[in-house]
Amino acid sequence: MTTTLSPTDRTQIRRHRDRARTDRAELFEVLDASLVCHLGVMMHGSPVVIPTVFGVDPDGPDEDGTLYVHGSVAARSLVEAPGQDLCVTCTVVDGLVLARSAFHHSMNYRSAVVIGRGRVVTDRDEKVRALDRVVDHVVPGRSATLRGHTRKELAATTVIAIALHEASVKKREGTAIDDEPDVLAGGWAGVLPIATVAGTPETAPDSMTQQVPADVRARARSLS
Amino acid sequence: MTTTLSPTDRTQIRRHRDRARTDRAELFEVLDASLVCHLGVMMHGSPVVIPTVFGVDPDGPDEDGTLYVHGSVAARSLVEAPGQDLCVTCTVVDGLVLARSAFHHSMNYRSAVVIGRGRVVTDRDEKVRALDRVVDHVVPGRSATLRGHTRKELAATTVIAIALHEASVKKREGTAIDDEPDVLAGGWAGVLPIATVAGTPETAPDSMTQQVPADVRARARSLS
Repeated sequence: MTTTLSPTDRTQIRRHRDRARTDRAELFEVLDASLVCHLGVMMHGSPVVIPTVFGVDPDGPDEDGTLYVHGSVAARSLVEAPGQDLCVTCTVVDGLVLARSAFHHSMNYRSAVVIGRGRVVTDRDEKVRALDRVVDHVVPGRSATLRGHTRKELAATTVIAIALHEASVKKREGTAIDDEPDVLAGGWAGVLPIATVAGTPETAPDSMTQQVPADVRARARSLS
Repeated sequence: MTTTLSPTDRTQIRRHRDRARTDRAELFEVLDASLVCHLGVMMHGSPVVIPTVFGVDPDGPDEDGTLYVHGSVAARSLVEAPGQDLCVTCTVVDGLVLARSAFHHSMNYRSAVVIGRGRVVTDRDEKVRALDRVVDHVVPGRSATLRGHTRKELAATTVIAIALHEASVKKREGTAIDDEPDVLAGGWAGVLPIATVAGTPETAPDSMTQQVPADVRARARSLS
């Protein structure tokens, strides 16, 4: 795997170049921090953006690792996806940047944009690994605590792989920056920090046990 | 304005139809609850998905109201946007649905998908209103506390309008639902609630006042 993100024409960051990150490790950090991704796929001749869970395999078979999305075999977006260039974007909002002028309002955020040709995963072993990665993205370690996938479940599920090769990462951090006259005018500026947090696990009414498993408790702690 | 969402072929929800919402008020609720949207735009022949702030004007000039995105006049995505069909998706994650089988894992979420032709806002008054709506989406009431937009700021900013007419809303709520054999096998299932919350406002070092304004304090409370 290459350790840096080498932008292509499609992933070259042109606006706010100071926000561009080039360390591949930061790509994985943004992906890890995102509960869902937004998948862009051409349908009916125009782009459609769909929120979906995803999984990441840094050692996946594609160049620089693999990102997986999945869904019903009947899902139109996944029927359309193979063979076309897809875009997967992950965004974490870290703060509202509240400047003295409307113009300098901004957000603190981390975002990753991955572009790549969609590949249908047909190999059973890769499909199982991919689905486990998706579950483990939601709650790390959870797939190992669940029963295996049935043949029927695998047959009902389409998994699409996208190489993590062509990607860009942006990050804005820090406080509000205004033009000097606005600073001197005396108004307040600053940042309202934003976080995504977990509450207390709610056990399903039909659960045969009330004992929240360790992986779920750990996930709740990691989101607090 | 029509009070219901009348799906077109592009916004008809086919998967999990039970999750489709048809009340237009729920579209505005999802938009209000989303700090950023994900804009899908065709670039170089493939879809690119960009996170961005946005504003909503239910009484905007487009059919069923207007959604606004903005950016630098030099931003490639906004240069490409006019005249093509765009997709704006907003997603709020409300919980991780942790079933006994990998297959029945899910998320509780609310999402809105808006599809429409991008229109460059050229009218000065609409542009000002749109930019105020964007600021007020981040912190309600904030635009009224700021100085007006300068001619230079307006000239440096592109605003794109999209009608809120063609839209769909999905919502999943409730607990994990497994097949009976998995329930009887005795494992735990449930939901880990997820929320987006604000921390304590951090005043900019160059702020001439430490007094956090009322609109920011109210926004912090609304995100707690």
